[in-house]
Amino acid sequence: MKQADIGLIGLAVMGENLAMNMESKGFTVAVYNRTVEKVDNFVKGRAAGKNIIGCRTLEDLQASLSVPRKVMLMVKAGNPVDEYIEKLLAVLEPGDIIIDGGNSHFPDTARRAAYVESKGLLFIGTGVSGGEEGALKGPAMMPGGSKAAWEYVKPIFQSICAKVGRHGDIPCCDWVGEGGAGHFVKMVHNGIEYGDMQLICEAYHLMRDGLGFSTEEMHQVFADWNEGELDSYLIEITRDILGYVDANGERTVEKILDTAGQKGTGKWTAITALDEGVALTLIAEAVFARFLSSQKDARVEAAKKYPKEIPSFEGDKKAFVENLKKAVYASKIISYAQGYALMREAAKTNGWNLNYGGIAMMWRGGCIIRSRFLDKIFDAFEKNSELSNLLMDDYFASVINDCAASWREIVSYAAKIGIPMPAISSALNYFDGYTTARLPANLLQAQRDYFGAHTYERIDAPRGQFFHTNWTGEGGDTTSAAYLA
Amino acid sequence: MKQADIGLIGLAVMGENLAMNMESKGFTVAVYNRTVEKVDNFVKGRAAGKNIIGCRTLEDLQASLSVPRKVMLMVKAGNPVDEYIEKLLAVLEPGDIIIDGGNSHFPDTARRAAYVESKGLLFIGTGVSGGEEGALKGPAMMPGGSKAAWEYVKPIFQSICAKVGRHGDIPCCDWVGEGGAGHFVKMVHNGIEYGDMQLICEAYHLMRDGLGFSTEEMHQVFADWNEGELDSYLIEITRDILGYVDANGERTVEKILDTAGQKGTGKWTAITALDEGVALTLIAEAVFARFLSSQKDARVEAAKKYPKEIPSFEGDKKAFVENLKKAVYASKIISYAQGYALMREAAKTNGWNLNYGGIAMMWRGGCIIRSRFLDKIFDAFEKNSELSNLLMDDYFASVINDCAASWREIVSYAAKIGIPMPAISSALNYFDGYTTARLPANLLQAQRDYFGAHTYERIDAPRGQFFHTNWTGEGGDTTSAAYLA
Repeated sequence: MKQADIGLIGLAVMGENLAMNMESKGFTVAVYNRTVEKVDNFVKGRAAGKNIIGCRTLEDLQASLSVPRKVMLMVKAGNPVDEYIEKLLAVLEPGDIIIDGGNSHFPDTARRAAYVESKGLLFIGTGVSGGEEGALKGPAMMPGGSKAAWEYVKPIFQSICAKVGRHGDIPCCDWVGEGGAGHFVKMVHNGIEYGDMQLICEAYHLMRDGLGFSTEEMHQVFADWNEGELDSYLIEITRDILGYVDANGERTVEKILDTAGQKGTGKWTAITALDEGVALTLIAEAVFARFLSSQKDARVEAAKKYPKEIPSFEGDKKAFVENLKKAVYASKIISYAQGYALMREAAKTNGWNLNYGGIAMMWRGGCIIRSRFLDKIFDAFEKNSELSNLLMDDYFASVINDCAASWREIVSYAAKIGIPMPAISSALNYFDGYTTARLPANLLQAQRDYFGAHTYERIDAPRGQFFHTNWTGEGGDTTSAAYLA
Repeated sequence: MKQADIGLIGLAVMGENLAMNMESKGFTVAVYNRTVEKVDNFVKGRAAGKNIIGCRTLEDLQASLSVPRKVMLMVKAGNPVDEYIEKLLAVLEPGDIIIDGGNSHFPDTARRAAYVESKGLLFIGTGVSGGEEGALKGPAMMPGGSKAAWEYVKPIFQSICAKVGRHGDIPCCDWVGEGGAGHFVKMVHNGIEYGDMQLICEAYHLMRDGLGFSTEEMHQVFADWNEGELDSYLIEITRDILGYVDANGERTVEKILDTAGQKGTGKWTAITALDEGVALTLIAEAVFARFLSSQKDARVEAAKKYPKEIPSFEGDKKAFVENLKKAVYASKIISYAQGYALMREAAKTNGWNLNYGGIAMMWRGGCIIRSRFLDKIFDAFEKNSELSNLLMDDYFASVINDCAASWREIVSYAAKIGIPMPAISSALNYFDGYTTARLPANLLQAQRDYFGAHTYERIDAPRGQFFHTNWTGEGGDTTSAAYLA
């Protein structure tokens, strides 16, 4: 019997579909699942007649694989991954490759890569995005870990992943970096997904409660937006969701409770930004907005205590919607600028050499944030691979300048009428902060020096010289500032 | 010789001043420092003739203390605390008490309390706020850990701490809770401090660059604000900083570089909020604003790429400043509402029974965020100890209602002219979100169900029933929603 090209452990939805995808590209796949019936059902059912080998033990799996063996875990993130690593170390040999395709947190991946490498084997932690359909037809994949493993895994991953580009030949999968780099980039992807979704929700909110638009009217707006620079998977499904009518003739979206769930990856992104010292305001506000949404009962009570009367809109609705589109687009640029800034800082911290344009291409197809917009990010890094911030790219600068007045109008108007726009507002505040040469932090440093003698730098002295003032010193002859060598 | 009432390890600024404070209240203090010369210098110098016993070894320290022995560490947070705990466990006896008065992170304190208790001793981790002057004259203190230790430590702590109230007899120190509760509340204090400072900076920025006020004019504004409901230590020192003129006749604050430093406690607060699922937007924005301020060179470059022309203000400046004061006050209420919400959630997570009014009193004197405003928080919890959110208190509701129009005016105007107001804006967005009965998260849940089958709840079904829609199902006969039991 032919040796299998790759083994796959975990036959839940993602695992099954990935196995089918691999097989459809000409690879032979050995599959294993802790509950063995799942293996039998899969092999007799969906995988019948395919080059898929069912294994009832990990020893079977080991024996069925060509060398170096490649075993991909599609199991729940957390302890199960560590447990399987232990079991696999017991049956595999030096040079073999363990792959974690789950939603693991990147520090765990870094730890596991080092551990598996210490045993003489290789480890890859890869983000896999696109859900069930992506897994079957072509996900975005973000692999990182043991660089030496990549040459063995690359032919499989780049066959099964989504493809983009004019000729459909650019794989949405490339090597990201060592340690936890792959899962890190997947985490940032998820954080950006939180931001994109929140931006869409804020636009919907302002149209629904500020303009009094019907769901059908908003369906039309998103259909229109999807034809332009906002063209993306999330705008497209928003269009479809708003257009969806159930068997009773009702719009399902109107019946859904406004309490957002979350699984923690947006939160991880915000925490990582705080740890890295990166102002990732938009995604953080998106995470906080989900928290606030989940406090439904408290909000209903608070709404009674602070009754709100949103004035009816008197202006040109079409022009307003155009402003809103520009506000969303400008905010989206800010969100990606912040996400890319986080990647730059984390790359320094972790010693990664990230290919920023390449990452845009990995996200260009197959995943939730796929959009036409990512081509522009790719272009920006093609022009300047050292670009310090997306805002410094000429194309994005021209877009921002084109959108700025509209953006300000929307934030202003929403603040006046009382509709929350946390992401769109925080994006504008970031933009205005980032483009302000002199912020008020001179006062903040004075305060810190006043109460904690934390010292400060001066505009008329070289950077790195620190001064302290005896602020409470009495009498005119007190020396104002002492240079601290 | 008289046995000492308490031992103190670590004769840096805070330790020395705390020892002097304790001695001044009638306690005998034994002191130790790793570098023994510091002990000698202190005992021969500032502590000469006082009831302060210099110890050259930990054995000396042990022998000089009355039982149960109380030893307070005033050493750098982190490993030094763990190292001293090990050394003290070797010389102390069961029932003795180790106190950590440094700026430790609360999970470390929880771990240490459990560890020290496992050895039969008791542990207290206490926040100490107020800097050098506070340590000497009366700090705010927030102790937590082994409850059984409190009766022994209470007489000392409540003697040396700041006192408030009409009769000056309410100590700014009371028992907070078990484990890391004391350091947790100190961390939230520091986070709120970040928020208060950022709000002041935003007001300063808008007056400086939006109204074109001179530093002297702003000095007058803060002097005025300090006479009203914003009366607080931070407003007071801002007044003094803006009024401070150096020997050359220059305003020192104008010469300070606008790059804010930070030591991590604001970041910890934001991270804890993300972990607890609490929308702590204002403090998070304050932390991000410090990050952004530190990117001075990038901002100077970006300001060249996006030249800004802030229009000169044409309206009534006095009325504008009054609006600004109200915006700051309303935002401050939001910040404390968010901080208190974080304490409530963390109390649930950690099994603490926090006294929220008591915490307001601990912060009322001695520390950086001390203010008249805290009396109002105390009152709110006196009226209703189960208050779910400060916004639901009648007094704060009346203030917010009085401030709302001004607040909206300020956020709107700043957005229009391009001066960043991340904290004041995020506060308004939180308020508008918290008081909105129906947020747009219904759309977000639809998106999550569309691409990830995450399911949703419905407004026309009981909470806890989850539905999934086959959004891409074709044909009119597709069942729109399947109830998932």
